[in-house]
Amino acid sequence: MKKLFAEFFGTYWLVFGGCGSALFAAGVPNVGIGYAGVALAFGLTVLTMAYAVGHISGGHFNPAVSFGLWAGGRFEAKELTPYIFSQCIGGLAAAGTLYFIMNGQDSFLGIDNTKAGAFASNGYGAFSPSGYSMATAFVTEFVLTLFFVLVILGATDKFANGKFAGIAIGLALTLIHLISIPITNTSVNPARSTSQAIFTGGEPLLQLWLFWLAPILGAIVAGIIYKNILQDHEN
Amino acid sequence: MKKLFAEFFGTYWLVFGGCGSALFAAGVPNVGIGYAGVALAFGLTVLTMAYAVGHISGGHFNPAVSFGLWAGGRFEAKELTPYIFSQCIGGLAAAGTLYFIMNGQDSFLGIDNTKAGAFASNGYGAFSPSGYSMATAFVTEFVLTLFFVLVILGATDKFANGKFAGIAIGLALTLIHLISIPITNTSVNPARSTSQAIFTGGEPLLQLWLFWLAPILGAIVAGIIYKNILQDHEN
Amino acid sequence: MKKLFAEFFGTYWLVFGGCGSALFAAGVPNVGIGYAGVALAFGLTVLTMAYAVGHISGGHFNPAVSFGLWAGGRFEAKELTPYIFSQCIGGLAAAGTLYFIMNGQDSFLGIDNTKAGAFASNGYGAFSPSGYSMATAFVTEFVLTLFFVLVILGATDKFANGKFAGIAIGLALTLIHLISIPITNTSVNPARSTSQAIFTGGEPLLQLWLFWLAPILGAIVAGIIYKNILQDHEN
Amino acid sequence: MKKLFAEFFGTYWLVFGGCGSALFAAGVPNVGIGYAGVALAFGLTVLTMAYAVGHISGGHFNPAVSFGLWAGGRFEAKELTPYIFSQCIGGLAAAGTLYFIMNGQDSFLGIDNTKAGAFASNGYGAFSPSGYSMATAFVTEFVLTLFFVLVILGATDKFANGKFAGIAIGLALTLIHLISIPITNTSVNPARSTSQAIFTGGEPLLQLWLFWLAPILGAIVAGIIYKNILQDHEN
Repeated sequence: MKKLFAEFFGTYWLVFGGCGSALFAAGVPNVGIGYAGVALAFGLTVLTMAYAVGHISGGHFNPAVSFGLWAGGRFEAKELTPYIFSQCIGGLAAAGTLYFIMNGQDSFLGIDNTKAGAFASNGYGAFSPSGYSMATAFVTEFVLTLFFVLVILGATDKFANGKFAGIAIGLALTLIHLISIPITNTSVNPARSTSQAIFTGGEPLLQLWLFWLAPILGAIVAGIIYKNILQDHEN
Repeated sequence: MKKLFAEFFGTYWLVFGGCGSALFAAGVPNVGIGYAGVALAFGLTVLTMAYAVGHISGGHFNPAVSFGLWAGGRFEAKELTPYIFSQCIGGLAAAGTLYFIMNGQDSFLGIDNTKAGAFASNGYGAFSPSGYSMATAFVTEFVLTLFFVLVILGATDKFANGKFAGIAIGLALTLIHLISIPITNTSVNPARSTSQAIFTGGEPLLQLWLFWLAPILGAIVAGIIYKNILQDHEN
Repeated sequence: MKKLFAEFFGTYWLVFGGCGSALFAAGVPNVGIGYAGVALAFGLTVLTMAYAVGHISGGHFNPAVSFGLWAGGRFEAKELTPYIFSQCIGGLAAAGTLYFIMNGQDSFLGIDNTKAGAFASNGYGAFSPSGYSMATAFVTEFVLTLFFVLVILGATDKFANGKFAGIAIGLALTLIHLISIPITNTSVNPARSTSQAIFTGGEPLLQLWLFWLAPILGAIVAGIIYKNILQDHEN
Repeated sequence: MKKLFAEFFGTYWLVFGGCGSALFAAGVPNVGIGYAGVALAFGLTVLTMAYAVGHISGGHFNPAVSFGLWAGGRFEAKELTPYIFSQCIGGLAAAGTLYFIMNGQDSFLGIDNTKAGAFASNGYGAFSPSGYSMATAFVTEFVLTLFFVLVILGATDKFANGKFAGIAIGLALTLIHLISIPITNTSVNPARSTSQAIFTGGEPLLQLWLFWLAPILGAIVAGIIYKNILQDHEN
């Protein structure tokens, strides 16, 4: 049970901090934090929670990561469902809090789900921040999640400097956002995509399938690659 | 006594560095550091002082943190008053230094306390940088302090990688500012709010109550959650 | 073999993340990540992969680094060719993926190789982002690679805090980009230059020689300096 | 002798990286790194060199730091002169390289020493980037160097997490620049000020005294405070 609470709080923090910084602070004129600030925020949600609750749940906060660790032989299949459930509930609770806070600004007129990136939702085609196609979005999410999970599996390998894994993994998420916010608004995390899509509705909700499929496929491929090609089984 | 000096210097640095970067460098045209730079500065004040004097006082620099550690069973009630006193004096000394430096710029005409964020003060409603309501400000400060203290309690747990706590806690404060400067100018720290409100006066001083109440409540709830839900008592 | 796969994945990540962030996210109006975001991205590719696969291959991801470690007596000559081959193939694979993704944006009209920095290519003279001469570009690449390899040799010295080397080395690459993107679009890495030059063609491809010669010379000089002047041979 | 070479290379890197990023990259339109990027660059020069050669020389790279460590009882008086000499020579060599590189840009017309911040020089009054007075500049440099040396003495205390000192100290320098570039263009380091003032000449050279006096006084006061108030002598 402690594990599931840890995943709940961690994913809440990821969605609240990452999507919140995008919604409140990215576009403020002149002094706004821009995409780089949002990238830093997403990464720091994971870095901070990895050191705070990583010793409790392993610190996934992301269904694709749970699948990738399972494929890499580091996580049991029976734990997938409760972990993913906790992650999604944590994300939804955060999205609800973000919606409440947005309502506290006089100028807020509701979420306009005809715009790319509305309520920090992920999307492709007309819903990609810079207009990238569906195929491109799929490849980008696949590749980025694959490398994200490679970093996770490598940095937590028993032969690695495991104590630094929280820094490497958190900053890998920052790096991923530095690359891909213009393409898909960056997911690599189905829980984060789901919470924002449910509140946004409309086309972003219809595009949600891609942000489950591509990250999870990428994560599973990473697990297979790491276990079979990179991991040292002899020592 | 060493502890109280450490808290004095640490909180001086937090206010001088965090609020100073906002006052001097955030809004410089073209090359200014913006909200992201201020967020980094606040976080680095805590990161640097955590490694510098954390071994002396524990490195709170924040009355809400002291309350949260008390609620989490990590800090004695009798130490609350001297710690909080040292923190507030440190913040006030820093604010005085900042005021002196601002006076050294020819164009300085005194603090205009009719403007949101004057002298880096915290506020809500008309004194929120982007016009967020009082209820929203309260929820934001409550939630952010709650998670700040969860990160502190988790990262310093005996089962965690405690040596990295200074990095996790400092960067958590950076993350918190990346999210919420537009909402309340970000407090999560009553000492930091008090020093700036006293020099600013006017409405920001009248709004100071919220920046004691919301952060301390959030911190206490975090202490209760961590102790009862997340902490492992069996090992 | 594991080592060569690790170098392949690491160099793929360096080119995909560093050049990708430049191509997709640097110039987005108002919220783009700018040169500072690109600098952070390049550094984080190395930081993350150093902790992920550093225990497998040593984490070079750069032919100049391999030469520098050889000159410093830390890497065997016979391993130079396979390492450099893997690095170049990794870079090319990443460049191919980047090209595919760029094609997914409607407004993409192909790489315009008459412009400085096209497809994140390196260059001097008319192909330097801010118009710096060939001699200047040579000196800059030489000096920066020299110091990059000094940091690598120093941070991985047996008397240093070796576990922090991934942080120091990754952030050294960030620093190098903060200085020199306007001068050469920053190489210090022949594999990264080669992959982008091959896809770009034209003058940037003709200028590629400098981005092999200057970094490798700088790296070798660093190896000689470290081994003969700074390293402690007595303990 | 190794120590003096280490100080030479470290201070070269500090001036080349910090001042170089300011000269080449800070003001590029739209994508320039701004003051925040320069602040990061200065900090990373120290962070990277602290892990690279800190085990050789202690990693001062700054005459004020050498004085502060002496005042704090951590450095011998007889080593002050050779260390400071190496630091100043390293800074001058870096400034010479920077001047050579600037000449490689067609549009370069020589250093205009009537402008604040010319060739990354430090200054006050009309030579402060945002027009701060001499007294203000003195107080700012004094306070910032005082806290810089407190962080250094604290983070390297035998009771502290000494392995993290390079991170804390490097990022303290980033923080210091986030605060004070608009005030004095940030020195806290007489060697860095001297190299730039000598190449700039004119009024900035006449103002150099302040950037020796204020930082060294701040550093000595920090040494006295740490040794007498914060350090634990009993264990």
